[in-house]
This record gives sequence, C-alpha cells and structure tokens, in this order.
Amino acid sequence: MPITVVRTRAALRSAIASRLAEMARPIAVVDAEHLTMHRTAAPSLGLVPTMGALHDGHRRLAEAAVAGNDVVVASIFVNPLQFGDPVDLERYPRTLEADVALLEEAGVDIAFAPGLEEMYPGGEPLVRVTAGPLASKWEGASRPGHFDGVCTVVAKLFHLAMPGPAAGGSTAYRAYFGQKDAQQVAIVQRMVRDLDFPVEIVPVPIVRAEDGLALSSRNQFLSEQDREAALVLSRALRLVESRARAREPLNPDDAVALIRSQPGVELDYFEVVDPGTLEPLAVNCRETPFTGEALAIVAAQVGPVRLIDNMPLRAL
Amino acid sequence: MPITVVRTRAALRSAIASRLAEMARPIAVVDAEHLTMHRTAAPSLGLVPTMGALHDGHRRLAEAAVAGNDVVVASIFVNPLQFGDPVDLERYPRTLEADVALLEEAGVDIAFAPGLEEMYPGGEPLVRVTAGPLASKWEGASRPGHFDGVCTVVAKLFHLAMPGPAAGGSTAYRAYFGQKDAQQVAIVQRMVRDLDFPVEIVPVPIVRAEDGLALSSRNQFLSEQDREAALVLSRALRLVESRARAREPLNPDDAVALIRSQPGVELDYFEVVDPGTLEPLAVNCRETPFTGEALAIVAAQVGPVRLIDNMPLRAL
Repeated sequence: MPITVVRTRAALRSAIASRLAEMARPIAVVDAEHLTMHRTAAPSLGLVPTMGALHDGHRRLAEAAVAGNDVVVASIFVNPLQFGDPVDLERYPRTLEADVALLEEAGVDIAFAPGLEEMYPGGEPLVRVTAGPLASKWEGASRPGHFDGVCTVVAKLFHLAMPGPAAGGSTAYRAYFGQKDAQQVAIVQRMVRDLDFPVEIVPVPIVRAEDGLALSSRNQFLSEQDREAALVLSRALRLVESRARAREPLNPDDAVALIRSQPGVELDYFEVVDPGTLEPLAVNCRETPFTGEALAIVAAQVGPVRLIDNMPLRAL
Repeated sequence: MPITVVRTRAALRSAIASRLAEMARPIAVVDAEHLTMHRTAAPSLGLVPTMGALHDGHRRLAEAAVAGNDVVVASIFVNPLQFGDPVDLERYPRTLEADVALLEEAGVDIAFAPGLEEMYPGGEPLVRVTAGPLASKWEGASRPGHFDGVCTVVAKLFHLAMPGPAAGGSTAYRAYFGQKDAQQVAIVQRMVRDLDFPVEIVPVPIVRAEDGLALSSRNQFLSEQDREAALVLSRALRLVESRARAREPLNPDDAVALIRSQPGVELDYFEVVDPGTLEPLAVNCRETPFTGEALAIVAAQVGPVRLIDNMPLRAL
C-alpha cells in the first residue's frame, strides 16, 4: 500500500484510525454449538519523529519501526522551538520529496508533514514541557531552551499519533529515536517516565559512514577537509571503547589529547557518563580498570557545523 | 457494580481496561445471507481529578461525568507539587473513606488513590509541564509554581487514565474540572490545546451553599464569624452579574468597595476578565453598557483561609 502523506492533525488522526482498523479487522469463527468471535491481536503503532533531511540513520529508525509494528507513522517537522539560532533554523535542510520517498521505501504507512501554523496555531505554545536539570549540561549548555523545545514538540507528536481512540485491544505504542542524540534519548525517556506517557521509547543505534563518521543531516555542510578532520571524533570514541571492552582504565585524557591535536576541530566536551543520568563517571575513568557500562560522548565544532557523537562502553 | 478502589498505576490500567471491555462487549447479528457483526458503540471514559476532601461541588463533577460517560474514574491525590506552603499541604484535609463513599454514591466506577511514591517514584519529576504566562497573574501571583504543579500532575493523570489502549472504536475521553478554579480551567484547557492532549475538558459550574458561599474543601476552617464575613464575596460578584445581565455599566469599583467595607475580609483582587485569557477587560467595565460575555473573579483572605470565587457575566 502506498504511503499516505498528511498535512493536518485531523487528517493524521483519520489516517491512523483507518490503517489501524484495517489491521484490526475482526475475524468471525462459527462452530457447531456457539457463535464465537475473535478479533485479531490488536495492531501496534510505531512513531518516528524526524525533522526531515532524512539519511540512512533515519532509514534505520524507520526500518526498526516497520519491523516492530503493524502501522508506522513518521513525522517531518522542523520545530522552531528547539532552535536557539534563527540562522541555524533557516539553513536547516528541507527535502520533503526525497524524505517521503525514503520513508515509503522503508515501509512507513503514514508521513505527517504539518506546516508551522498547523503545529502551533495562533503562535508559540504558552503551556510547555520543560526538560529540567537533565538539559543543563552538554548539548543543553550550548543550546539554552533546546531540550524544552524538543520535549514540547515530542509531547505533541506523542499525543497526535496516539493509537488509543482508534484501535481495539491493548494496542502497543512505540516511538523510535536515534541514539546519536544520546541526551535527547535520555531526556525523552525521562519525560515518558515523569509524565506517564503511554508510549515505549526505542533507541536505535547510530549509523556510521564507512569512514566512521556518524550520519547527520548537518554533514552535508562539511567540506572534504572538514570531513577528514571530523573523523578524529569517532577515532577518539573508539579508543576508549576498545579500552572498556578490554577492562582497561579508560584514560579519556588520551582521547581528549587526540582530538585537540587535530587541526580544524574545536573540542567542546568529551566525557564518559552514566547513560541514564548523563552524569560524569569519575570512578571508572582514570587508572581503575573499567567495569560495567557507560557512555562516551563528544561534541566539537568542525568547520561550519557543530558535530556530536557517542559510543556505548561495555566491559566484555 | 460497586466502586473499585485502586492504589497503583498498574491496577488503574487494568481496572479501566476491564470496565471498558465490559461496556464494549461485541454484539453478533446473524441474518439469512451474511454473517455480520456489530460492535456496540465504543465506550466513553470520564476522568474526575480531585485532591479528596470531597464536598457537594465534587459530587456535581462526578455526577456530570457519570451522566456523560460509560466508565468514570475519579482520582484522589493531594499533589505536593502544587503546594508552595508545606503547612498548607500538611493541613489539607484527608478523608479517604468518606470520599470513596461519596464517589460510589455518585456512580463512579473506579477511584484511583495513589500514594506519593506511586505518583512520583524516585522523588519529584525532573521533566515537568510549565503553565507559562497564564499562570503569572491572580492565583498564580500569590502561589508561585502552583499551576506548574497542577499541569504536571494533570498531565500524568490524563496519561494514566487514557482509555486508548484498552478500548475499541473511537473512544471519547473527557475530563471534568470545577469552574470554581477558573484559572485552573483556563490553564488546563490551554495545556490540552498547546500540547494536543486527546481529551476534552468539561468545566462544571460552581456549587454554592444556600447562603451563597461557593463550596470549598477549605470552608471547614472558617469560624461562624468568618463564614458570615465571606458571604460578601458572592454578594459582590452578584452585584456585577446583575448589572451585566441588565446591560448596565459594571462599575466593579462598587463591588470592590463592598468587599473592603466588610471587616474580617482582606481583598486580594476583584477583576472582570476574559474567560479564556484571564486578561482584564477594561472596555466593558466602566461607564460603557456591558455587552457580550466575561468572567468576574475574586480572591480574599478570610480568617485562616484564602477564598476564591467567580461568576460568569452575560448580557441578556
């Protein structure tokens, strides 16, 4: 079935309702003694929130959602609330036709591509979701208000795509987020827990180019030279990741030194943190052999763009 | 069927699921040619969020919800997030047994009475809903953070009681709020709109004692003398309300003077505002004959308690 592209919230609601109804068609079973009826297992719904400019990282998100759910909705909306810098918002790439083609290829059922006025009728919302202390560090430190904007639009999308009212039985509802934005994943998971959203967050691993660079819609702004320089980020992550696997002390200072030695790269932070709280893990970092699990995170300015990357650390 | 009292979020989910399932029992219709199946109309769910200490005002809320929905959930939770003053929180009346009896009498199906640890496991939530500029005035001005706490707990309750996953068809979902807390109603309505909650807010008119005092859980702290003095509030509201009906200038200064002349009553504010934005309506207040609709709101300290009241104004 071809992808359905909808522009309004009302059209989204009815597209979801009709796709779920198709998946939930009742099956009648008549036997000799009784007229019994069975419904099919209730259909599940997967949501993939995006800002468009889709690449293979998003394709992986969409494929994960398609593999795990009966009906999949992907949203494409460049959310001004999460941009502090109007220039960044202005130049954020918009490639709707290619995006819809990629989503359709991945098997997505419904693409929701609302305009600004549809998402924020009458201007910016007054009542918002605030991310709190989890947003004060790392990306949040250099982008004040960013995660409040993310939480607010994600709350809206969770509500708009919510399968409940249209589905039968105990419908599963899952939302897919790329692990590349590790802090976003941690904050959205915390939002779901703190506000009891009836949705399960599924983080999907980072997709990397062959040279190791984590895919990002912003990579297209890198010159060839920038891109070469940017590879130091994943190399630095891999350095601590291999030490973690070998249960060696991580000594992240070596990774920091490696990045600092790379011309054209201006390091913002490189840290080993708890994946849930994003608090630095001092104990596991210096001298002591690494045990358990952690997350190495990095951010740097490379040429015209700010790049982020991360890698889960696990002792084998 | 007797009321089901649940203490945990999981028990709430399954109580809702089973009540909705009962209401949605499929009906099979077999005719000569085809085996056709019809489901009953999808059941609707009404939610009545309360802090307990229920009185006839709450009874009216519960009755409205019961009259309009197949399944009704009432929650009883004294939410510490919305109390600035720990003494006020401490002395807030708790009368669970009587509350459950009142709810059962009103026809409520499920009472959700979670403990603090159940609603906020691991302490206060980090991610919250903030009420924004609508909360800066009136009650918000004297209770900083109050409406953020209200929005946060109401968002949680909306999610916890959401009928979606358990219901068939296009389930209606409604939540009932007393018009006595007019600013709360306006903010919750704005929250639903700004964050696209799939729920309809139903405001229920104020219930008054025979002497005109708006019912409130806090009235029990009034001495006989306080109570007598407090009647000036509804008298002042009625003064502008009768002028509005008669399309006369409202001259709210007269109402203010009336309240100020009452010993034992310390006026905080008396204003005529737009019911949605809560902005003062200068134009309709002085000299000019009243037309259209507005809301008169008042707050005052009477003896040991702060009382609020309001009255819709409508030109006949």
